[in-house]
Amino acid sequence: MNTKNVAPRGSSRPATPDAGFDAVADIVVAGGGAGGLPAALFARWQGNDVILLDKAPQLGGTANKAAFWYWVPNNRPMREAGIVDEEAAFLRYVARLSRPQSYDPDSPTLGKAQWEFDAYRAFYRTASEAAELLAERDALTYRPCHEVPDYWSQIPEDEAAKGRVLVPAGARESMADGGKVAVASLSKAAYRDGVSVRLSHRVQRLVIDGGRVVGVEATTPEGRTVRVGARKAVVFATGGFTHDPELRYNFLNVPAYGGCGASTNEGDIIRITSRSGVQLRNMNYAWMCPIPLEKALCRDPEMSGMFSVAGDSMIFVNKAGQRTVNEKLPYNELAQHFFKWDPEKAEYPNLVMIQLWDQRSQDHSASDEYGRLIVPAGQPDDHVIRGGTLEELAANIAARLDSVKAHTGAFTLEPNFLDNLRASLGRFNSFANAGVDEDFNRGGHPIQFVFNGPVKDDADNPNVTMAPISSNGPYYAALVTGGTLDTKGGPRTNVQGQIVDVEDEPIPGLYGVGNCTASASASAYWAGGATIGPIISQAYCAANAANAETPVALEPVAV
Amino acid sequence: MNTKNVAPRGSSRPATPDAGFDAVADIVVAGGGAGGLPAALFARWQGNDVILLDKAPQLGGTANKAAFWYWVPNNRPMREAGIVDEEAAFLRYVARLSRPQSYDPDSPTLGKAQWEFDAYRAFYRTASEAAELLAERDALTYRPCHEVPDYWSQIPEDEAAKGRVLVPAGARESMADGGKVAVASLSKAAYRDGVSVRLSHRVQRLVIDGGRVVGVEATTPEGRTVRVGARKAVVFATGGFTHDPELRYNFLNVPAYGGCGASTNEGDIIRITSRSGVQLRNMNYAWMCPIPLEKALCRDPEMSGMFSVAGDSMIFVNKAGQRTVNEKLPYNELAQHFFKWDPEKAEYPNLVMIQLWDQRSQDHSASDEYGRLIVPAGQPDDHVIRGGTLEELAANIAARLDSVKAHTGAFTLEPNFLDNLRASLGRFNSFANAGVDEDFNRGGHPIQFVFNGPVKDDADNPNVTMAPISSNGPYYAALVTGGTLDTKGGPRTNVQGQIVDVEDEPIPGLYGVGNCTASASASAYWAGGATIGPIISQAYCAANAANAETPVALEPVAV
Repeated sequence: MNTKNVAPRGSSRPATPDAGFDAVADIVVAGGGAGGLPAALFARWQGNDVILLDKAPQLGGTANKAAFWYWVPNNRPMREAGIVDEEAAFLRYVARLSRPQSYDPDSPTLGKAQWEFDAYRAFYRTASEAAELLAERDALTYRPCHEVPDYWSQIPEDEAAKGRVLVPAGARESMADGGKVAVASLSKAAYRDGVSVRLSHRVQRLVIDGGRVVGVEATTPEGRTVRVGARKAVVFATGGFTHDPELRYNFLNVPAYGGCGASTNEGDIIRITSRSGVQLRNMNYAWMCPIPLEKALCRDPEMSGMFSVAGDSMIFVNKAGQRTVNEKLPYNELAQHFFKWDPEKAEYPNLVMIQLWDQRSQDHSASDEYGRLIVPAGQPDDHVIRGGTLEELAANIAARLDSVKAHTGAFTLEPNFLDNLRASLGRFNSFANAGVDEDFNRGGHPIQFVFNGPVKDDADNPNVTMAPISSNGPYYAALVTGGTLDTKGGPRTNVQGQIVDVEDEPIPGLYGVGNCTASASASAYWAGGATIGPIISQAYCAANAANAETPVALEPVAV
Repeated sequence: MNTKNVAPRGSSRPATPDAGFDAVADIVVAGGGAGGLPAALFARWQGNDVILLDKAPQLGGTANKAAFWYWVPNNRPMREAGIVDEEAAFLRYVARLSRPQSYDPDSPTLGKAQWEFDAYRAFYRTASEAAELLAERDALTYRPCHEVPDYWSQIPEDEAAKGRVLVPAGARESMADGGKVAVASLSKAAYRDGVSVRLSHRVQRLVIDGGRVVGVEATTPEGRTVRVGARKAVVFATGGFTHDPELRYNFLNVPAYGGCGASTNEGDIIRITSRSGVQLRNMNYAWMCPIPLEKALCRDPEMSGMFSVAGDSMIFVNKAGQRTVNEKLPYNELAQHFFKWDPEKAEYPNLVMIQLWDQRSQDHSASDEYGRLIVPAGQPDDHVIRGGTLEELAANIAARLDSVKAHTGAFTLEPNFLDNLRASLGRFNSFANAGVDEDFNRGGHPIQFVFNGPVKDDADNPNVTMAPISSNGPYYAALVTGGTLDTKGGPRTNVQGQIVDVEDEPIPGLYGVGNCTASASASAYWAGGATIGPIISQAYCAANAANAETPVALEPVAV
């Protein structure tokens, strides 16, 4: 995305309706991604006039870059296949993971805040209905993934560990292009069914009349101001704050280096609602993933999160050359590892890790999907560091780290890097030969095979996630750190999608959907698609409630 | 403090001045702790009428429970002693620690956000002036602590590692009662010099006139509403959000179990300013310390943070009976350890640690200061778990954990606890005999001796922080977790103490001081007193700027 085509940030101070409106609809949706497109469609299908504004020059937001798995409990294919996914068990699974320290199976809310518990239940009860409606209207058809396990399928609370994941029907076998397929399909439906789409319109402020939100003011890259009135509701679906460094540093629980959310995800709703008495919630958490450090530093808009760290003869080592983590952990968990604190040295010793692989992985695991850093010839590979020997590789890694030191607190390799690296390779190779990772249990849970990526066809390999790393070069490496898909915090909504104020009262006319609002998942990443599944459900609930609002009479188009 | 003497939370919706004011002053200060008392005094000494409102039935806030060290760079005793503490070097020290990953000595702001850099500089330039004024006016006299090192005296950026700490002159030798001394002295000065103090007045909302804050509305425990007008400014100094679980869980970077801030620290300013367009900043960080789990769960208002984990024949072990941390780390660092995440098991394996000691430590290290858990006979000791043998102790620890399992995600000892514990004791004892902790470097830095507490006089002990734990009972233990002194996040102020809005414009008439505002220290705890030193400096800057405001004409006292 060319960020030059996006209007700069303007004042967020609320406007009054006195200046009139350039356009008026029943429902105005801000943001046209995985939250906004479904919200607009659901609202439109109920007969509302809908205007959808997107800050970017194209629809899709972060969904353009996603695989667009969507996690739908007790979905139709599950029910048809006889897979039992009961509400009570489902609630235990999500509650157990979201804030493990407060999980209490004997509590009426399972130990969670009431609003979080309510959100889990609303999700369970509406997600399948929402997914089916999108499919019936040919806005988003899907195929089930009966073989994909949840990210925590191994815990006893996961009583329906497979089958909740749906993917867009037209996605390729690897599902990596699911987002492009979904955005194309949802957009086509939006245009087909008469949603009025206005691109390159950045929502800057609310229009408020006597405490009720009755519209928004947007600006275009050319500097034009456009006021759009909403008779029933304004629905925000503008994404998280991945690309606002100030918000990231001052809210997230870890000092993440950006992420792969759409470049337009700058937390606009935080400023826009800062005079509306909203409750900001779960501001400390994000959907996390490892990211290539250098792409994050240059804010490469095409950057993908590393959803799958491919390769068998491949390891991560730290600046001391030590292997310190299971490279095949689900991405949200792997990403936490970068932010371990060393209280002795006042530093994050794992802030930058080094992914290292040999020719075997280069030959058999190269891929341009899921953010993999082992890329085929012809793909952008500026992030790849090479060395004919380990010595040469280490020298080149050191030089590369030096080139970015202004952004890492002068992160450097430790003097014993090379010796430790040799020992780490020897130890890993012995684990690979035996098929058991005694240190970090690589390949120890089902989900880790899903994310192994392509590897050399090697029927004798006792653990396909590991293969010995060659004692001969060439060797390859890349710098990795922790980042976000997008953030999870924002104004809290109720189960109708209404944004509530600090007194728990809905702010009249103001709704929110998706990563711009508080996700009740808190620290957890329940499963693949645990991002988009709840978002579609939330869009459905918000559209239903917005549809039921009594419309306010607004001035017809002004000037 | 008896929380029954505190008014419940009311609506935070701003009021208009139409209803008139029950009292009017030039400057109204909300909160009478380490921020509010100095702010009120500084303002009063410039000739302003000052009304100070405190939610509690007594003055002091968290300061009542503090040692009240205050960290003052380049202070007068340092200058008189010829200790060099230059601004540039000081800025490098604080910047290096506050966000280590962004520290860049070659950047004009050292890699920090401009507002954070500005805050460090304002602190350096005004703290000593503020401290001297308090001393000159006999509101707070001090004695220097030339021998107390900063918490990171070992890093090269600390060029003046000793001498910045001041303590109230009348504090006892251990300095543990500094807060009581300081609060008494500051309060006496406030009454003496004509600050109008109103206790049990909970500020609930702002009074705003045409965008300018012109007062506050408070309520009393009896339900009376009191409107107080401010001709020049309202200064908030109401403390952090340690005692609001919802804010803690949704903002802090770790799921801390409360803390030892005053019980009235419920983040009131977050709600009260939620319609004013403030920039919330550093909401993810807190001044951290270990705390006794059970006192935190019952919200014991007298609970102290464990500033000093006393004892030589004493260790921390985890639920598997393993020693995993240096028990003598500065409290802010030690507290991080409880929140390590296990990505394999989806749990915080160190959420509860067990402090364990023997009769030697019971006999020689018992103390009622600095939150120590080894207490003398006659002191409250419900937190102490006893066992004649290790077997008995382990059984009693297991039972105690079971009694709080609804609050810990059913945290339990692992089956191999006792075997591992024996091995841990053996290994620790060998380190103690040798004087060197090969695992965690206990006693490795100067600050660790400051916090060792009383120990048995043992001239032959090669490392006074460690002594072998007896192979015979009785044994003692307590459950420990991580908590806060108080939180660090809130509306951002500029260097004049003005609370700014999301467009970086000061909100007219609205000032903030202390833990209710964003601390530029971010993740760091620079030194003992790095809490109160900057707060006194901030109070001084805010009072000076508020004094310079053009007063608005307010209605005289109404009805």
